[in-house]
Amino acid sequence: MHKGWGVAPSQPLNFDPIEEARRQWHDHGWTEAAEGMALVTSIIRAQQIYLARIDAELRPLDLTFARFEILTLLSFTRHGLLPMSKIGARLQVHPTSVTSSVDRLEEQGLVRRRAHETDRRTTLVEILPPGRRVLKKATAALNDRVFASPGVSKKETAALFTLLRSLRANEGDFSE
Amino acid sequence: MHKGWGVAPSQPLNFDPIEEARRQWHDHGWTEAAEGMALVTSIIRAQQIYLARIDAELRPLDLTFARFEILTLLSFTRHGLLPMSKIGARLQVHPTSVTSSVDRLEEQGLVRRRAHETDRRTTLVEILPPGRRVLKKATAALNDRVFASPGVSKKETAALFTLLRSLRANEGDFSE
Repeated sequence: MHKGWGVAPSQPLNFDPIEEARRQWHDHGWTEAAEGMALVTSIIRAQQIYLARIDAELRPLDLTFARFEILTLLSFTRHGLLPMSKIGARLQVHPTSVTSSVDRLEEQGLVRRRAHETDRRTTLVEILPPGRRVLKKATAALNDRVFASPGVSKKETAALFTLLRSLRANEGDFSE
Repeated sequence: MHKGWGVAPSQPLNFDPIEEARRQWHDHGWTEAAEGMALVTSIIRAQQIYLARIDAELRPLDLTFARFEILTLLSFTRHGLLPMSKIGARLQVHPTSVTSSVDRLEEQGLVRRRAHETDRRTTLVEILPPGRRVLKKATAALNDRVFASPGVSKKETAALFTLLRSLRANEGDFSE
């Protein structure tokens, strides 16, 4: 077990509040929606847990997970650069979010915007050496202290990934 | 399939970007962290998908999911009221978040704060009739258009819930 809670500095409850909500849903006759409510609420809670653990690692490096993801994506390309539009598509975030994250990364001196050599309508984002250095530290911290211990067994991790992949595909994130 | 994406108004990708990230993790030798990274990123993405669907239903009612959850919790009590501290513990959110949500609900005339009759240090929050009315609409909208169709089959919903329950328990949300 990790620090637990993550978002609320309290004692663990002695019952599962989401099970309790599900029971209430059934008691109110909302049977068709009860299991979905429990799932959606569980996903939201799991995200809060992980994000709190991630933020604890990234805050000392003055990064957010959104900015970490952009740096990671850029670092994986051959020349360390990508068009703005491609960053949004790959990270599945709205263009305005990409813009504000890139603004901040540029202020921090971790990336720079560049004009495309042939297509003047395209803005490229390039990771800079300080960006690569902070990314290396961030990746090591997240790998060691979050991703290597996601709170479930290897088998459960694989099962969850597969089920969530089906969810993401069904909701239109990607097609195969 | 629903509107898809939820957060990014684009075409679906023709590959799974999280699978691709996982492959990159393995290629970089971060093997111990690769599966956890894929899980954590999938949870964050699933949360974005659901939250976008929830927000689309609640925005016309001028509610957020956090405020919906507080109203729901109050409505489930015998007298429609709870101490502030209990709301935070049950919803597993930080006291400052509860305070700002209750402030907003009070401005909207949906709840009111009351002094506790015997314990003066305790502030109670009470749901008001307009709160019950908007909650009824919000619950119907979410039940019909989000919770009854969470994007996976009934069997997958149950499997996901069980796995996420194990994750939440291991991370210290509750003990049994």
